[in-house]
Parts: sequence; C-alpha cells; structure tokens
Amino acid sequence: MNTKGRVTIPTDMDAVPETLDLLKRWGADAIRDCDGTEFPQELKDTGAKIYATYYTTRKDNAWAKANPDETQQCYIMTPFYTAEDGALTIPLMTGISRELMKVNDHDDIARWWEVIDRTTGEPVPTADWHYDAASESVAIDAPAAYHEYTVSFLAYLIWDPVHMYNSVINDWKDVEHQIPFDVRQPKTHAYTMRRLREYLESHPYVNVVRFTTFFHLFTLVFDELRREKYVDWYGYSASVSPYILEQFEKEVGYKFRPEFIIDQGYYNNQYRVPSKEYKDFQAFQRREVAGLMKEMTDIVHAYGKEAMMFLGDHWIGCEPFMPEFQKSGVDAIVGSVGNGSTLRLISDIPGVKYTEGRFLPYFFPDTFHEGGDPVREAKENWVTARRAILRKPIDRIGYGGYLKLACEFPEFLDYVESVCNEFRELYENIKGTTPYCVKTVAVLNSWGQQRAWGCHMVHHALYQKQNYSYAGVIEALSGAPFDVKFISFDDIKADPKVLDGIDVLINVGDGDTAHTGGKVWEDPDVSATVKGFVHRGGGLIGVGEPGGHQYQGRYLQLAAPLGVEKETGFTLNYDKYNWDEHRDHFILADCPDHDVDFGEGKKSIFALEGTEILIQRDKEVQMAAHEYGQGRGVYISGLPYSFVNNRVLYRAILWAAHDEADLHKWFSTNYNVEVHAYVKNGKYCVVNNTYEPQDTTVYTGDGSSFDLHLDANEIKWYSIEG
Amino acid sequence: MNTKGRVTIPTDMDAVPETLDLLKRWGADAIRDCDGTEFPQELKDTGAKIYATYYTTRKDNAWAKANPDETQQCYIMTPFYTAEDGALTIPLMTGISRELMKVNDHDDIARWWEVIDRTTGEPVPTADWHYDAASESVAIDAPAAYHEYTVSFLAYLIWDPVHMYNSVINDWKDVEHQIPFDVRQPKTHAYTMRRLREYLESHPYVNVVRFTTFFHLFTLVFDELRREKYVDWYGYSASVSPYILEQFEKEVGYKFRPEFIIDQGYYNNQYRVPSKEYKDFQAFQRREVAGLMKEMTDIVHAYGKEAMMFLGDHWIGCEPFMPEFQKSGVDAIVGSVGNGSTLRLISDIPGVKYTEGRFLPYFFPDTFHEGGDPVREAKENWVTARRAILRKPIDRIGYGGYLKLACEFPEFLDYVESVCNEFRELYENIKGTTPYCVKTVAVLNSWGQQRAWGCHMVHHALYQKQNYSYAGVIEALSGAPFDVKFISFDDIKADPKVLDGIDVLINVGDGDTAHTGGKVWEDPDVSATVKGFVHRGGGLIGVGEPGGHQYQGRYLQLAAPLGVEKETGFTLNYDKYNWDEHRDHFILADCPDHDVDFGEGKKSIFALEGTEILIQRDKEVQMAAHEYGQGRGVYISGLPYSFVNNRVLYRAILWAAHDEADLHKWFSTNYNVEVHAYVKNGKYCVVNNTYEPQDTTVYTGDGSSFDLHLDANEIKWYSIEG
Ligand SMILES: [Mg+2]
Ligand SMILES: [Mg+2]
Ligand SMILES: [Mg+2]
Repeated sequence: MNTKGRVTIPTDMDAVPETLDLLKRWGADAIRDCDGTEFPQELKDTGAKIYATYYTTRKDNAWAKANPDETQQCYIMTPFYTAEDGALTIPLMTGISRELMKVNDHDDIARWWEVIDRTTGEPVPTADWHYDAASESVAIDAPAAYHEYTVSFLAYLIWDPVHMYNSVINDWKDVEHQIPFDVRQPKTHAYTMRRLREYLESHPYVNVVRFTTFFHLFTLVFDELRREKYVDWYGYSASVSPYILEQFEKEVGYKFRPEFIIDQGYYNNQYRVPSKEYKDFQAFQRREVAGLMKEMTDIVHAYGKEAMMFLGDHWIGCEPFMPEFQKSGVDAIVGSVGNGSTLRLISDIPGVKYTEGRFLPYFFPDTFHEGGDPVREAKENWVTARRAILRKPIDRIGYGGYLKLACEFPEFLDYVESVCNEFRELYENIKGTTPYCVKTVAVLNSWGQQRAWGCHMVHHALYQKQNYSYAGVIEALSGAPFDVKFISFDDIKADPKVLDGIDVLINVGDGDTAHTGGKVWEDPDVSATVKGFVHRGGGLIGVGEPGGHQYQGRYLQLAAPLGVEKETGFTLNYDKYNWDEHRDHFILADCPDHDVDFGEGKKSIFALEGTEILIQRDKEVQMAAHEYGQGRGVYISGLPYSFVNNRVLYRAILWAAHDEADLHKWFSTNYNVEVHAYVKNGKYCVVNNTYEPQDTTVYTGDGSSFDLHLDANEIKWYSIEG
Repeated sequence: MNTKGRVTIPTDMDAVPETLDLLKRWGADAIRDCDGTEFPQELKDTGAKIYATYYTTRKDNAWAKANPDETQQCYIMTPFYTAEDGALTIPLMTGISRELMKVNDHDDIARWWEVIDRTTGEPVPTADWHYDAASESVAIDAPAAYHEYTVSFLAYLIWDPVHMYNSVINDWKDVEHQIPFDVRQPKTHAYTMRRLREYLESHPYVNVVRFTTFFHLFTLVFDELRREKYVDWYGYSASVSPYILEQFEKEVGYKFRPEFIIDQGYYNNQYRVPSKEYKDFQAFQRREVAGLMKEMTDIVHAYGKEAMMFLGDHWIGCEPFMPEFQKSGVDAIVGSVGNGSTLRLISDIPGVKYTEGRFLPYFFPDTFHEGGDPVREAKENWVTARRAILRKPIDRIGYGGYLKLACEFPEFLDYVESVCNEFRELYENIKGTTPYCVKTVAVLNSWGQQRAWGCHMVHHALYQKQNYSYAGVIEALSGAPFDVKFISFDDIKADPKVLDGIDVLINVGDGDTAHTGGKVWEDPDVSATVKGFVHRGGGLIGVGEPGGHQYQGRYLQLAAPLGVEKETGFTLNYDKYNWDEHRDHFILADCPDHDVDFGEGKKSIFALEGTEILIQRDKEVQMAAHEYGQGRGVYISGLPYSFVNNRVLYRAILWAAHDEADLHKWFSTNYNVEVHAYVKNGKYCVVNNTYEPQDTTVYTGDGSSFDLHLDANEIKWYSIEG
C-alpha cells in the first residue's frame, strides 16, 4: 500500500515539529501556508508542496482606501413600508449592519436605484421621490395611501463579509476591517495584476496559489446586531457596480433594471425560477469573470506555479460546472466537504488537474477542547463523504485549522492516519475507471449543470427544515451506483436529445420553485418532451410537488406520468376511491415494516385511478407507483437522507427503469452496506456506512453471492475474478 | 308556555293514528304530505297546515319522453388523454353512468363542444377533430405527440340525479327513472305552468306547495358503478342548454365558450376564484330563474296557497341571499339542518314570511333500527344547531321520513317533545329582536353574500379533510354574539364604504382560492382598501393562508397587517430570529394549557419582526398577533370547530377590535357555556352546549356576575332587570 501522498495539512509558525511529524505519520505531501510573513525553512526543505492562500479582493486596505470608488458594491432592497395618507419616508439602512455597508449615493441614484410600489408592482417615477443623505432615507411625497413601497439601492461593502464573519465568530478585537475592492474596475484591475506579480516574486517557495477566491462573494448580509441576515451561497447580488452593469447593458442590448437583481427582495435565490434577465446576467458575469481569472492564472503559470481555486467565498461567476470555467486556467479545486453532495460538488468538476476535499473537523477550539470528541466528528464526516468518494473520488484530502490543537488529541491523529491510508488505498483501486453504474439518472430543474449537486443548498450543506426532505435525494445519489446528470429545462428546450440515454428523470422540490420548474410547464415543448420521454419507456421519479404549477386543470404538471395530483380544493368535489395501499411493492421490500420516513412529507396528495398507492397516511398519499405508456412513474412525498431511504431511492430507480431483474448485481441485502465495482481495474469493494458492525449478503456482478460480516465503518476490497 | 305550533311532522297513509297522536304531543301544526295519491280525511280535519312536495322538473315521464329535446343537460369534461404519435381517440362516457347521462349530439357539436389541448391551453379547431357516434368518442387525427387533450361536451340528463341517488341509496327496484325536463325551454315552460295549475286544482286540501325545488340541480354526477363521482352543492354545470346559452350570449354581448362552465374540469367550484364570465353566467341564471319562479308562485298564490322552497336540490339560480330571489314570490324556505352554519343558511334568508329547519335524524331505517340511537343523533343535531338558533331563529322546526319508524322509539318521541317545547320557548323569548352583538365581523372572500354561511361547503355540511379547519370558523360564528356579514372582493371594489361599521374582517382559507382571493390581491384598490381598513384601526383575522397569492415579494398578501408570511423557499435565505412564544396572550387565556387544536394547521408560516407569536410548533407559526398602524391582525393556521376554539375566535375578535375590556359582558367563564341577551325583550339565556353538566360564572351586561350550575344541554332563561 502506498503510504504517502494525496494529503494536505495545515501548519503554523509555532507547530513546525508537529508538522514534520504529521507529514510523516499521515503521509502528507502538501502544506497549507500559515498566515505569518515568513515560512519556516524546515518545512520548505521537506519537499512537500506549499499552498498559499491568496485573497484577490481584500487584505490591502491601503489600496481600498485610496480608491473608494472601486469598493465592491451590492444591491439591497429595504423591507416593505406601508404608506398612510401623507408622505412616506423609507430609511435605507434599517436592519443592515453599518459596519458592513454604506449607501452608495455617489453614483447616479436616478439611474441605479428603484423605488417600487409593491402594491401595483410599478416603479415610482424618479421625479416623485428623493434621497435625503443626512437621514439616509428616501422620501415619497405623495404615495398612494396604504400601498407598500420598497427601495432598491446600491451599497458599498465597506467590510468584506467573510472577514466580518470570521471576526465576529472568533470575537477578534482591534482587527482592521478589510475593505473589498472590485477587480473588475479599471484601476483595481491593473493594480491587481501588479499586486499578484509582486506577491509571486516575493513568495518563491509557494507552489500552489490557493485563490480564496476570485472576485465576487456570494450574497451575505449582516444586521445591526452583527447577526447573519441573508445568505445565499449562489447569490449574485454582491457582484454589481454601475461599471459592470453598463457593460452588461451594452452586451445584452437592453436596459438594466435593479429589479433584475432585487427580484422582489428574493434576490434570485435557489428557489426562484430564474428570469431570462437573471440568466443573461449570470452568463455575462461568468464570461467576464473567467476572462479575469485567466489573466491571473496566466501570471501564476508564468511563475511556474499552480492556480488552485477554493470552491466558495468569492466564487460567484466561477461556477466550475459551467463551460466558462474551462477557460479560466485554474489547475486545481479545493473545497469543504460536509457530506456526499458537497464532495461531488468538488470531485465531479471537469477539466482540472486535481481536486481536493477539506475534511471536518476544522482544527478549531469549538471541537478541539477538553471534552470535545473530534474523532466522532471526523468519523461522521469521512463515512458520509466516503460513499461519494467511492463513486467519484477527489484526488486529495486535507485538513485545516491549528495543527497544534489537533496534536493534543492522539486518538484523533491515529484516526486521521487510518483515513489517509484508507483514502490512498481506495484511490489506488479506483483511479482511472468509471465505477459500475446500474442506471443513468438525471435530476431535472431550472438550474441543471450550473448547480449540479448543489441544487438544494441554501448555504452549502446547512440544514433547512424546508429542504432536507428534498436535499436527501441528492445526498443519496451522491454515493449511489448511478451515472448522475443534472439537466435544466433550458437544456431540454434547446435539444430534447439531452434525454437520450437517460433511464430515469428525477424532479424534486416544491411547486412553483426552480427545483420543479413552475411556469416552465406552460411551455408545451418542455411538457411534451418530458411526458414523451416517460411514455416511450423512460422512468420518472417525482418528489414533493413534481411539476407543481397550477395550469390547465392540473396542479402537478407531471400528474399524468406520476398518477398523483395535489388537492388544492379545486378537485375536492371529485370523489376519490383509490386509497388501498400496496406495501408489498418491490420498492418497499427492504424497508422495516414496509414503511418510510418521508421527512416533512406532503399534505393533500391523492392518487388518480390506476395508480398503485404504496403508502398513504390519513388519506394523503406519500408514495405511489404508476405505469404511463411504456414508462413508469414513482411519486415520493419527501426523502430525507438515511441508509434505508437511500435503498428506497435505489429500488425506485430500478423499478422506474423496468430493471427489477438486475437488483442482485453488485448489491448488498443489508441497506447499511453498499457495493461498488470498478470493473476495468478488476476491483470491487463492500462498505459499511454505519458505526456498528453489519452482516449482509453480497451479490457480485454475475449474480453469485456470499455472506459477509463487516466491522463498524469497514471497507473491504476484493478482486473481480475474471 | 305555548305548547302548540311551529312544528312540522311527516305522515303516511299507514300512520294516521300516530300522526294524530304526535300532532298533539309535539304540538305540531303542519303535516308534510305523503307520497300517495290520496290524503287521509282525518288529517285534513285536524286544521294543521298541509305541505305537499312538488317536483317542478320531474315525475312526469310522459312529458319528458314526448319532448326529448327539452331534457335537461349538463356540461361534462372527459379526463385528460395523452396523445402518442398517431391519432388520439377520446371516449366521452368513460367514468360516467350511462343510466344518468347520454351524449347530446343532437345540437351542433361544433358550436357547443370544445376539444382542448391542455398542454397549450388552446382549443383544437373543429376541423381537426370529429365525433363518432357509434363509439361515442372524439377522434383527433393529428394531435401533438404527448400533449394532453380533453373534450368538453353536452350530455342529456336521462335520470334525475336526486332520483337516482335515492334509488341507489334505498336500493329501489323496478323504479322508472324520472327524466328531468327543462322548464326554461318554451314547450316545457308552457306545459309546466299548465301542469302546476292542474296539480293545484286537484289538490285543494294543500296549503303549502313545497317546491323541491325549481329548475336546475346542483352538479351531481355518478360513475358507471353508480358511485358519486362529482358533487358541488353550488355547481351550475347542470343548468345549461343551447337554448339557455344563446340567450346568455345575447344578454352579455360576447360569445359563449364551454370553458366558461368547464373551467379546466374544475367546474367553477367553491374554491375557484370565479371568472368574470362565470359571474356573468350566474347572474343571468339568477335573473331568469327568479322570473320563472315568480310565474309559478303567482299561480300558487292565485289558488290561495303558499309557495315554500326547499333549500337544496334544484336550487341553482335561486340563491336566497341574492337580490334576484326577492323577486321570486317565495313565501317560505325549508332546509335541512346539519349544524349551526346550515341553520343560518336558512334562518338568515331575508324577505320570506317564515323559515323552517328540518332536523335530524331522518326517520329512516339507517337510524331507526334495533340498536340504533336516534336520541343521541337528535340531541347532537339540536344542541349543535341551537347555538345558531339563539342568534337568528328559524321560525319553525320539522322532521321528515317514516313516522311509523319513529314511533317504535318512545324515548325519541319524548326527546323531540322536549325539543319542540324548548324551541317554542326560545322563539317566544327571542322573536322580533336582534340579539346583543358584541362586534360586527365580516367574512371576506370571492363569494360574499352569494355563499353566506355556505362558503366552505362542498356538499352541504359534509366533512372534508381539506376544509374542516376553515369551515370551523364559520361554524363558530354561526352561534357567536356577533353581527356577521359576508362580503366579496367585488363589493369592496364597487364601494369601499362596505367596510364602514365593520370591526373585524376575516379571511379564511388556502392561498389562490376563492376563499382567500388569489389574483384579486394584484388589484391595488382591493389590497389598499383592506390594508387601510386595518391600518386606520380595524381588526383582521387571517386563517390558513390569508391573502395567499405569490405577487411582488409576498406570498401572503396580508403579511403586512398580519405580521406573518409563508416560507415557500423564496425567503429561506433570510435568517429568522423571532420564535419566542407568548402563551400568556389574552386570546389564549381560556385554553387548557394555553394550547389550541389547529386541525390541519399550516406548515412553514413564520413571523415577521415585531409580531408576537402566540403558538409555534417546530418553528412553524400557528398563531400570532400583530399591531399594524392603529389596527390589529391575528393569524391562526386553522380552527376546527370546538367549544374551546369557539372561545379562541371570540377572544381573537375582541382583541383584534381593541375591545378586551368588554370581555366580561354577557359572558360565561366556562367556554362550554354561552350567554345570549335579547335586550329589547328583556331576556337573556345561558346555554350549556355540551352533553355533560357544567359550572360557570355568568357575567351580565353591566359586568355583574353569578355562579351557575347547568345540567347537560340545559338552557336557562332570565329576565334582564332594568
Ligand atoms: Mg477558507
Ligand atoms: Mg328532500
Ligand atoms: Mg413580546
């Protein structure tokens, strides 16, 4: 076994001996630069690669202060204010941290701001309102009584939100607020390239420039109490400035409106069906950002170094699954691993030389304190991510934080050592192959490839009551033996052939959201293409409110293939006689008591005639199966991630694809255990995803089987006998 | 006490002595005619009024068969059919009872039918489809592949659905199917008036012609298995014919489309926000129907008899709360009493000489059999309705069915005797006064007065899982000491002064339904009028998804006054910090454990800043209170009817109206007991609504109080000391 390589560790000026020790014990071959000005010679001498974090847009307040007009900006909408009979005054900064932002009244507010009557949906003519700088408020002299108004305005970001977050969380005192500058604007653009060259000149020992990140932070706003107010890991509203927006106007040929970004105060978030204008803006930003990234990576390469991108923070416009990214010249990606979905978010990125996952726990005092249990956290993180690594490995793993803290937990050091070895072994066994895929499945939503694996993330892997029942499907897929694609309605519209080769389509989410499509179902091309796909023999799995959008006699626009509909009251007059359960269905065969945890589930779903209800609760259908033409549809009300639900999805996909017969192929009868085969490499593994020992029967590719006992978390490797 | 009068009993040829006995025991003064051809002389001699049920549209198959072109008709939409690559054939009668209906291909199908591509929403040109009478199906030669299609067609009703229902339920054998004829059409119109005269000539002993009912049955469809398929007690889809529709076109001045009635297969049901065309059609029908009713009541009056209308069955176009009804000449209304709401549906009808409620149980074998408990059923029915009677009494009570059956249950006869006496006493005490009203409240929805008290009824008082949590509000109001109005958005639009004098507005139901208004909230007049009403000091209670309609940054369009919003995913990025409960609120003071049963409740409601959450469950707000300008809003997720919820609503109304101080006025501390005052008559009563004894403290109008014990169901009357 290869006991060296593929591992990155952090270091610190005060932890040089520990670093040297762990480089050896963990077989690490890369070291993350510490924050100090010097880098220890002993570490340079190890031969390990040295990563240096580089902040493109901050940590240079001299520049920022000298060029306040090129400070970063964002669009903000005030809350709704109700007009009474007289004039209405709307304060702009109420609810917003003044440490974070400052109203931008430098640029032409008549052009870049909008006051909107939200009762009519119409902008108020600029002549009918004015801004009072002293009170930082907009006054509307003669509003319509009892109409509600909002102001959309530009604000300067006077403290980088990530820097503010770190300062607040770590209770840093006397830290100068890092002011973010906008690399897109001419002066800063020129300066930035100069600054990078200077950095590279002065850091010859650095092998890898770890960009954290490029130019525009995702949307992150704090309130007056320094509490998080709004966060969207995919949000574009802090990537604006008049300079940028004028370019955008020129490129798309129509006039920019703040509402394109403000989006009624929803800021085009994850759930919003994206407008044409927003999609245009994103595409424009990706092109521009990729061009600038390329300028920087070219410089990095000219100095003989690699350019690594951190997946997150100022990553807006850099979305690595989009074609523009391929032109960015980035060599490697590193990202934080929270679960299987976030692992695939990294490992599936095409066109880079290598990918690296940063594992938890971070070596911070929140975990590494007396009584803390870093081993448990590490184990959960590793075992959860391992499913996904086994499908599509990252090329490297790494850790972050204060190494000295970790060294106080010898069991943790031991556990990570075993993880490093396990990772290297599996990487060796897997590399260069595509693991055996039982089926090809595609998740269909408004985002497609743009948000592959991240389509149910609000803030990276954070739990949300309203989405865990849907995100569970993506998490299950991240480690399942399927070829998983993410396609958008635009993809289908552009070329229905995008569905060729797909066995099962999945539509997951609430009605009238980007996840299920909303108004897109009024487009006959989309609707007929998807129904035709199923009718001609394809599989469809709908979770939640698939195709949910009230239109032409249906709420669920996928009602016909799925055989279920939602009772919105409009069909309450129709008697419903189909309530019998079929708990003996193929899909439920491995579930204890033939029952399922649907998470938040859904209310008021009923089955159409001819549909087989698998599970209903109090006359609300939670799961159903339906034949539609030559194809099959499966409805599930919600599917939070668990090992048993993972099996439910697995069987649902097989059933939807008419492939029940292939169940016993690379299969474990115990749903806590999974089997992955790497046929080209002549290897397969059996992996226990739980923290307890498991017994199972393993089926190999030819249908033969054997019984197996696995220790807690154990992974066992076998050769395929040819 | 008056021991005679205000009671109607049924009779039968075989139950004459029993009838005579009960006339005396129950103090009955009216007898419902039996179905036979003769009426017993002994009963004529009693001096009791004699009611005779009269069927305007059926029980004359000779006429029906001689005039098949004037058979009644209805619009039917087929289910959705998916086209494949070739032609598509849609059978019209699949799922419809052939005993009930027959395709009408007699009239011009190109004019009166529609084939609709539900994927595009467009009608298929008539040239592109044809009807094959032999197979009763429509063929579309070249449909768009994988589009879904429906056919809207006219069908003859060849069996009156009420007659069919009775036949099926009672398992009648060898009954000739009564064919309903259309009194609106010229031949049948003329014949009907002749037929009525002949009937009156031949039934001189009849005092009251009980029309059951007039011309058009509500929508009621059965399937091939004789099961109910679709029912809408307010439905207009069986009130059509080319003759009628041509008149309609002429009157409104635009072309009729079947889709006006078909409404995507939803048939304009209770939950659908009514279209302009549907409202036009209803108004047209009401005018035409009232004219015809007047012709018939004039004839009845000419014979010195009274015209009574049964509230139900063929009552479409006769809605008694609408102004057209006032021109119909109807003297009296009788209806079936299921609960308090259905009682007010009768007793609130203006402009008639008297109203009568038919109480349960019906004297049928389903209740009156060995082991049956008719007393329990009678008690529940009486006690439930009594709350409403005490607010607005019907003038008479009555029973129906086979008298002989009832006579086998002596305890039942005793109980009804006590009910008759109790009714007469309360009627005597109440008559001519308006009971003391603590506040004026108005239920605001798309239907207003048209569906006063019935706005959450799908089929009269039948339970529906999707509406009991809302219907409970109406039921609570039916017996509560408020002046209750029902107003529509159209009323507000026509004249905002309709809100003058109202203390509290109530909006109850699911989003995007007629109950909450849907798209009407995009009308700034409506939105600003309602918000202005609250902001200037009015009260607002929103239940479920009040004003629920996605528009301009809000799902709940009443979010501003109510202080709550629904999380649809669009605001998941906003951090929510307001989760503290305030269980000590005035509204919850009488609730056990300061908790409430919200029925189905609602998911994903959150509170805006500044809103007081009363109850949340797992971070989903179920109840909240909010100050808005000078007014107040209360949010409740659902409120099924119960005595404690009745109290919750009572307190919510007082709080919303800023009138907590008046709580102890005509008030019982025990929520199972209610107090009603009839100041003009110098009377008040205390009523125990439960089947157990209760103790309470009673507050009178001047705030003085006394303790009281009440027996189960007891009502106690007092004089107001002046
Ligand atoms: Mg970082
Ligand atoms: Mg009847
Ligand atoms: Mg408080």
